[in-house]
Amino acid sequence: MPALTPSDKALVPFVSVDHMMKLIHHIGVEEMMAGIADYIEADFKRWELFDKTPRVASHSEKGVIELMPTSDGDVYGFKYVNGHPSNTKAGLQTVTAFGLLAEVASGYPVLLSEMTLLTALRTAAMSALVARVLAPKNARCMAMIGNGTQSEFQSLAMKRIVGIEEVRLYDIDPAAIRKCAANLKGQGLRVTECTSAEDAMEGAEIITTCTADKQYATILTDNMVGSGVHINAIGGDCPGKTELAPAILHRSAIFVEYPEQTRIEGEIQQLAPDHPVTEFWQVLTGAAKGRTSDSQITLFDSVGFAVEDFSALRYVRDRIAGTDLFHPLDLLADPDDPRDLFGMLQRAKG
Amino acid sequence: MPALTPSDKALVPFVSVDHMMKLIHHIGVEEMMAGIADYIEADFKRWELFDKTPRVASHSEKGVIELMPTSDGDVYGFKYVNGHPSNTKAGLQTVTAFGLLAEVASGYPVLLSEMTLLTALRTAAMSALVARVLAPKNARCMAMIGNGTQSEFQSLAMKRIVGIEEVRLYDIDPAAIRKCAANLKGQGLRVTECTSAEDAMEGAEIITTCTADKQYATILTDNMVGSGVHINAIGGDCPGKTELAPAILHRSAIFVEYPEQTRIEGEIQQLAPDHPVTEFWQVLTGAAKGRTSDSQITLFDSVGFAVEDFSALRYVRDRIAGTDLFHPLDLLADPDDPRDLFGMLQRAKG
Repeated sequence: MPALTPSDKALVPFVSVDHMMKLIHHIGVEEMMAGIADYIEADFKRWELFDKTPRVASHSEKGVIELMPTSDGDVYGFKYVNGHPSNTKAGLQTVTAFGLLAEVASGYPVLLSEMTLLTALRTAAMSALVARVLAPKNARCMAMIGNGTQSEFQSLAMKRIVGIEEVRLYDIDPAAIRKCAANLKGQGLRVTECTSAEDAMEGAEIITTCTADKQYATILTDNMVGSGVHINAIGGDCPGKTELAPAILHRSAIFVEYPEQTRIEGEIQQLAPDHPVTEFWQVLTGAAKGRTSDSQITLFDSVGFAVEDFSALRYVRDRIAGTDLFHPLDLLADPDDPRDLFGMLQRAKG
Repeated sequence: MPALTPSDKALVPFVSVDHMMKLIHHIGVEEMMAGIADYIEADFKRWELFDKTPRVASHSEKGVIELMPTSDGDVYGFKYVNGHPSNTKAGLQTVTAFGLLAEVASGYPVLLSEMTLLTALRTAAMSALVARVLAPKNARCMAMIGNGTQSEFQSLAMKRIVGIEEVRLYDIDPAAIRKCAANLKGQGLRVTECTSAEDAMEGAEIITTCTADKQYATILTDNMVGSGVHINAIGGDCPGKTELAPAILHRSAIFVEYPEQTRIEGEIQQLAPDHPVTEFWQVLTGAAKGRTSDSQITLFDSVGFAVEDFSALRYVRDRIAGTDLFHPLDLLADPDDPRDLFGMLQRAKG
């Protein structure tokens, strides 16, 4: 009599939101972002191995639903993620996500995970990894413009990975500034609540913009940005959504994840399609230069790329091994005789 | 103090393999395929509403992993599915799948479901829906060539939806024939085990080919196929994988799901890219003709399309409502204040 209970192959480890929070606290949020940054760095250094494609987007009036697949030849991964700026009015997240890893050789999933929290961590980890490479040496102060979901993660990742000591917060909504400041209390950063974007940028070597629901907004105008800073532009990440005045882009050395995607979604959608940009992975491998002078403005036009999610999922897969921070999910039908799915179904009747 | 337990919005109904088997038995496998066929028919009749794209495939030496998204403007769906012919040698399924529905307005998932079983049902439901429309009137006998995972589902869907009374089984592996015959015993069909494909086709008005792991195999040669039959070609479904001699295609009226995908993956990859084909949805709406004479050979070049999965998931979503045949899955982070993901994380520490 064939077994009725699912085999190991049928059970996919699933990391719920609750498990992810426990994993983050088990490791420590800063330590986990540093670990994810290391995985991203390792994967970006072998960039050419990856099967890359711009994400597959389904747009509607209210937002976008995207699938972000990639593969390194051994492991396949994808993320489901939505972006709906008006969700917050209904008490919902702007962005929710989950992701999956599978074995390329068999096509069998090996990890399913929540990724709303994980995306927050990997986005901040990526920003801080890039800033570690491109920001002025000994940067100690960051302006954090836009104090929503990403703001605390960005601040702590920049502290842990770049070594900043002060964040200067600004948001058009004072309640968001207060929320961010309260959350960052006791986290080892000097936190300054500011009254304008200009005020926030006072003395900052790193300027992070992360606002959510403006169409072609201009968060930074040209005259606000002095020489020598590093701009970490997170919020412009879909067609029609940008944060920086084009004049700033023209003064900056621009670094991107995957040009094919960034030219559609990033700040550089405002520029000519052949405007020169540097792929960040090439800076890591030494194939391209990073910052070349103290007075240069470096700009990371971040939109988020599938490889970063792949790295974050790899990290989670490695870290949950040997813990009880996952459920075995009965996701895959696994008949004893692989051609006998019908027989498995019939035997389950009894 | 904000709540720590996930809200309803954070919990996504998940239909496991076990739940899917219980649902199938609760409804009845034939009844469920008939129900799914009705949902597919309804969705194909509003074909032009759907956001359609060829599936997003990641190919490797051993197989393919695909994402199949679509949307009708209100609901978004996608399926993850692999195809690895060599998996059976390792005791694994050639095809495993799972799928998801989400609300377009918010991007929030509303159903996650196993789809290995569900794909088997929807594939057979689609074949039978097409045969009901295109096969000779009063077709009573089907040749079932290839007796793997799909064979029992195809046979029972053709019985329930088309009214066939006999299936004639053939597979190059006699064990597969015996397995299929044993599974179909007592299901209300006259089952004949045959010694060749020619033998199986004796007297059959419908010829279903569903073989798995041959590259450019020729399961049917031209001289084997008489006039007036309906061919339901299931097995040729990726580049390099076909089952029918090109001469048969030239004698047939060819019906497809979505030409952009079928020309890459189906039997018609063997034909010129402008060879005339009819989109099946147009036959359903009356915009195109189906069978036009008793002597015509009709051919359904099936590759499987995202809208069919969408229909099947819609059916499941409607049928599990009010039952306990799902788990509430803690998939989405859902802080009380949608901008305060970090605060939710911190509060979970205690």
